[in-house]
Amino acid sequence: MEGQDLYDLAERLYPITRSLPGEGVRRTLDVLEELIPLSRTEVPSGTQIYDWTVPPEWNVRQATLRGPGGEVLADYAANPLHLVGHSEPAHVTLLGSELRPRLHALPDHPDVIPYRTSYYERTWGLCVTQELVDAIDDLAEYEVEIDSSLDEHGSLTYAETVIPGKAGTGEILVATHVCHPQLANDGVAGIVVAAGLARSLEPGALRNDVRVIFAPGSIGMLSWLHRNEASLGRVIAGIVVSNAGDAGPLTYKQSRHGDAAVDRAAASVLVGREHARIEPFLPWGGDERQFSSPGFDLPVGALSRTPPGFYPEYHTSADDLSVISPGDLGATLAALREIVDVVDANLAYTRTEPRGEPQLSRHGLSGAMTTSLLAGGEEERRALFWVLNLADGHHDLLEIAARAQIPFQTVREVAEALEGAGLVRPAAATERSPG
Amino acid sequence: MEGQDLYDLAERLYPITRSLPGEGVRRTLDVLEELIPLSRTEVPSGTQIYDWTVPPEWNVRQATLRGPGGEVLADYAANPLHLVGHSEPAHVTLLGSELRPRLHALPDHPDVIPYRTSYYERTWGLCVTQELVDAIDDLAEYEVEIDSSLDEHGSLTYAETVIPGKAGTGEILVATHVCHPQLANDGVAGIVVAAGLARSLEPGALRNDVRVIFAPGSIGMLSWLHRNEASLGRVIAGIVVSNAGDAGPLTYKQSRHGDAAVDRAAASVLVGREHARIEPFLPWGGDERQFSSPGFDLPVGALSRTPPGFYPEYHTSADDLSVISPGDLGATLAALREIVDVVDANLAYTRTEPRGEPQLSRHGLSGAMTTSLLAGGEEERRALFWVLNLADGHHDLLEIAARAQIPFQTVREVAEALEGAGLVRPAAATERSPG
Amino acid sequence: MEGQDLYDLAERLYPITRSLPGEGVRRTLDVLEELIPLSRTEVPSGTQIYDWTVPPEWNVRQATLRGPGGEVLADYAANPLHLVGHSEPAHVTLLGSELRPRLHALPDHPDVIPYRTSYYERTWGLCVTQELVDAIDDLAEYEVEIDSSLDEHGSLTYAETVIPGKAGTGEILVATHVCHPQLANDGVAGIVVAAGLARSLEPGALRNDVRVIFAPGSIGMLSWLHRNEASLGRVIAGIVVSNAGDAGPLTYKQSRHGDAAVDRAAASVLVGREHARIEPFLPWGGDERQFSSPGFDLPVGALSRTPPGFYPEYHTSADDLSVISPGDLGATLAALREIVDVVDANLAYTRTEPRGEPQLSRHGLSGAMTTSLLAGGEEERRALFWVLNLADGHHDLLEIAARAQIPFQTVREVAEALEGAGLVRPAAATERSPG
Repeated sequence: MEGQDLYDLAERLYPITRSLPGEGVRRTLDVLEELIPLSRTEVPSGTQIYDWTVPPEWNVRQATLRGPGGEVLADYAANPLHLVGHSEPAHVTLLGSELRPRLHALPDHPDVIPYRTSYYERTWGLCVTQELVDAIDDLAEYEVEIDSSLDEHGSLTYAETVIPGKAGTGEILVATHVCHPQLANDGVAGIVVAAGLARSLEPGALRNDVRVIFAPGSIGMLSWLHRNEASLGRVIAGIVVSNAGDAGPLTYKQSRHGDAAVDRAAASVLVGREHARIEPFLPWGGDERQFSSPGFDLPVGALSRTPPGFYPEYHTSADDLSVISPGDLGATLAALREIVDVVDANLAYTRTEPRGEPQLSRHGLSGAMTTSLLAGGEEERRALFWVLNLADGHHDLLEIAARAQIPFQTVREVAEALEGAGLVRPAAATERSPG
Repeated sequence: MEGQDLYDLAERLYPITRSLPGEGVRRTLDVLEELIPLSRTEVPSGTQIYDWTVPPEWNVRQATLRGPGGEVLADYAANPLHLVGHSEPAHVTLLGSELRPRLHALPDHPDVIPYRTSYYERTWGLCVTQELVDAIDDLAEYEVEIDSSLDEHGSLTYAETVIPGKAGTGEILVATHVCHPQLANDGVAGIVVAAGLARSLEPGALRNDVRVIFAPGSIGMLSWLHRNEASLGRVIAGIVVSNAGDAGPLTYKQSRHGDAAVDRAAASVLVGREHARIEPFLPWGGDERQFSSPGFDLPVGALSRTPPGFYPEYHTSADDLSVISPGDLGATLAALREIVDVVDANLAYTRTEPRGEPQLSRHGLSGAMTTSLLAGGEEERRALFWVLNLADGHHDLLEIAARAQIPFQTVREVAEALEGAGLVRPAAATERSPG
Repeated sequence: MEGQDLYDLAERLYPITRSLPGEGVRRTLDVLEELIPLSRTEVPSGTQIYDWTVPPEWNVRQATLRGPGGEVLADYAANPLHLVGHSEPAHVTLLGSELRPRLHALPDHPDVIPYRTSYYERTWGLCVTQELVDAIDDLAEYEVEIDSSLDEHGSLTYAETVIPGKAGTGEILVATHVCHPQLANDGVAGIVVAAGLARSLEPGALRNDVRVIFAPGSIGMLSWLHRNEASLGRVIAGIVVSNAGDAGPLTYKQSRHGDAAVDRAAASVLVGREHARIEPFLPWGGDERQFSSPGFDLPVGALSRTPPGFYPEYHTSADDLSVISPGDLGATLAALREIVDVVDANLAYTRTEPRGEPQLSRHGLSGAMTTSLLAGGEEERRALFWVLNLADGHHDLLEIAARAQIPFQTVREVAEALEGAGLVRPAAATERSPG
């Protein structure tokens, strides 16, 4: 998918009113299923997931705030952000002074609507502009009508797709949240980039399985982890994608390990891109927090443009389709694909005969005449000697590339040529312990 | 005890004529026992302590040097430094030229008396001003009278007090030497600060036992180590206190490990104090040398104002009560107490449910509305996420504070709040292997 | 041997026509055997050595290129570089246009003859100046006569000498290649320095055995490794010597470990020499590559003046006796000898009584009077305390010297004095694992 395809998909997904458990997630997955096969899981409301409980399924038919003259001041149909996520049903008439505590606005950004939710405490509320709050007359009457349902017998939905690798020994995770209603950058941008990755991968093209997860944030990701504990040992790397389409610099946030293969792969890919940034692990941000909790401690980083919280439109109605662009979505997908490729190819190798150098000419790897390596000076030739020397089962290709100061792709091609010549073979493990 | 109390105590202790084994140490302990309970140990002269032998007990009734006219030139009663420590008895009349090799003075500081001892070789000598040496007439007669005793059946005395902790699993050592006669900074200052610490600690206030040791230098500390070898595994940290009352900057000298908990605790405490200094381990200095010998290798640092040897009055009669002050004694005690508190509280924690983040609102740790952490920005909230993420049994609170760049006390309070909420519990060991 | 002796020996060895297997190596060893005892090994042609096969023995009676008028244009007797190493026999008359592909020259250095070999592919060729190539007339006839033999029943020769150490627990390797015909710096210079080292060492002078190996490059070194696999565990350090006599700076190239004892010893020796350089390990260069292959991974560095490939005369007829000098050969030998001495003396020590400091005066190590160490300030005294503190079996003397910032020789002398006084004894292993 080109950047324009991603943007077109984002436009289609943008208006869908997503939430944690509810029809919005399912309608989003329906659209994605036109492009990629998906396996869905329904997790019943009330299910205990570690410290959490899956909340009731929330669906909204309509919600309005009307003024003293009956005029509509805020309408869920116009913008679902108007309703605090998981608001319980209500139909009341109250004085402006009584209404005021139920209204959420941003005094510093008086013309936008904030995004608020209350998944785990029963209440209701409305998100509006500060301008509207300022115009509320304390003594006038306002009518609030929230026609929502909170179904204890509902369920939370997540979906995943696996592109099988040719070796199938390990798995690379890519995850994005699908619970944000009508937010562009911190919502559909991550979804379309993750979907674009899934669509771009042919089965058997990579060594490892790639699993792309579309799940509601936090509780959705934890639900996936809960159901897949037994196979987490297969995860060699993971990347959470979000906030993926704005004009800010490509940003990779390191995993909790800091020097996991995925961290070094991302560094290797981003080092060649202007304005790209590597940031250290912090225990807040997006869903990488769940994968990075001490009980899982998976090597999972996060890829975004501007990180969550660091652009003014974040978590407001201003995070609309104007914030994202085909070019930026495409560039994020290209970087994601390249990081996945590098981490997949990042094997450690072992020499088939580790004692002494091989007689290169016997293997078709040099001409008959002994010449000075330095006279040649070719990068491939230097890479060849580095790989032969560090193919000891302990150094992966990213480490070799870093030590040799040679691009990863050159080192990888040389290693594959040496494997083809029977001089090296992949060592047992690709993911190396940090430090 | 306030700084003035410490100074008053120092004034009382200052004139006592201490030495390695002898009545001076016991009289010093008598005074301390008015303030804190002490358990005394007598180690008989002649006892083999590793490479050392406890010297005979030395007591002095009087010692004088008289000039040709019978005039008193130096008198032990006026200043005990006049007599080389452990001088054997003597009563001789000699020519100035014969006397001269027995005199010790400081040519560069002609008006002060140096401090000299000869614990392990039988001899006698006198310490005087260079001015006096210069006035000696080689052909005149001088009378030396040393009425001392070196008792092979005496004993060396050390004392200790333990303030029991509520967990009582580990022990924090504080040690000071009690063998210096009439030296203020390099003598009574360390004694009163250590005594002040012992007096300030309520039983059960800390987790760990705190043991304060008052012992003669080197052989006294080694005697304590010798009798306590079986329980040294309980020592999680130690601090030798000396030279504790001058106006120089607070100075912490790292343990042999360099990054033991006590080293990191001291850094955490001193970083906020103007003019305070951290110095690397060196294998010379004070009694930390004995605790740091390779056979013990205990995590013991040293706290002083100006370190021993680096101020001009050091080991001379100029190290009198004018060198120390109530304010500086009080500041040293405050820092010592804080380091002990930090190292005591420096636990590693483990999450009770380590998989995923906890649902904070369920534990009363956040409001109902999901807000951006970054919008809040409070240090406590950042500390909360760091502790939850690094509560893996491997990171102690000082490491978490360093990584989070948040003050230790904030991290500690947050960890204790999380423990109160049942989300974390202390991990097994508090002292972590260096590196 | 003084520098002039080394140079005289180099002059004698220079004209001998060495190759991988052949009489040239044996004639070279004959000359060396006048100075040092040698044990020779013959490895039959056709022997499989890991990935390699020992080539046929090559000997040359004569080889000439004659011009259209019968004039001699190139003569092996005048310079053996004229013949591509291991050229098969030939006697042909060909047109200039047919001859041209058989000629090797250096267009950028038109007046010198390059050095070329074809050990593992049967062919023949001639190395000449570019000036001669330019003068070839495509239509004229040239006569090539190569009277060589490639004997499948011959053998490759290497030799070694061992100077036994007094402890004899470990072995220090010094290796140089003996296969280069009439090259001065990249040939006889390494040979004479290695021979000079062997001659300078008295049996029992060092702790460890020193083994000096004279072998053809690559296949010769691998032959030695192949026959000595069982005892490679004895090798505590190794140095490959080559390019050892030019005016360039002394250069030590680190072993694959980077911080092996030999690397730290070389740094300690070279730090005091002006213009000396330490270079990191690279997987190309000289025979250190074979010792450093992952299946051996021995701590072997390389000592040279200008490293191979980095001076313009390298691998050409310009690398003649004018490139090397008695002074530079002597300086290389002196550095080599000192590195061997340091690595040999680089023990880790253990205290005989590790608990507490020793009572120094009892061991004749200090005067009777306690004085301030800092007042003295002598380097030896500081070294004494460092050795006593770090004599824990884990820190070798080079590490102690580095931490104490005291020259190795001072630390070594102090350690030996402490050993003499019975306070320390050598710990089990001298070579420490890197990192």
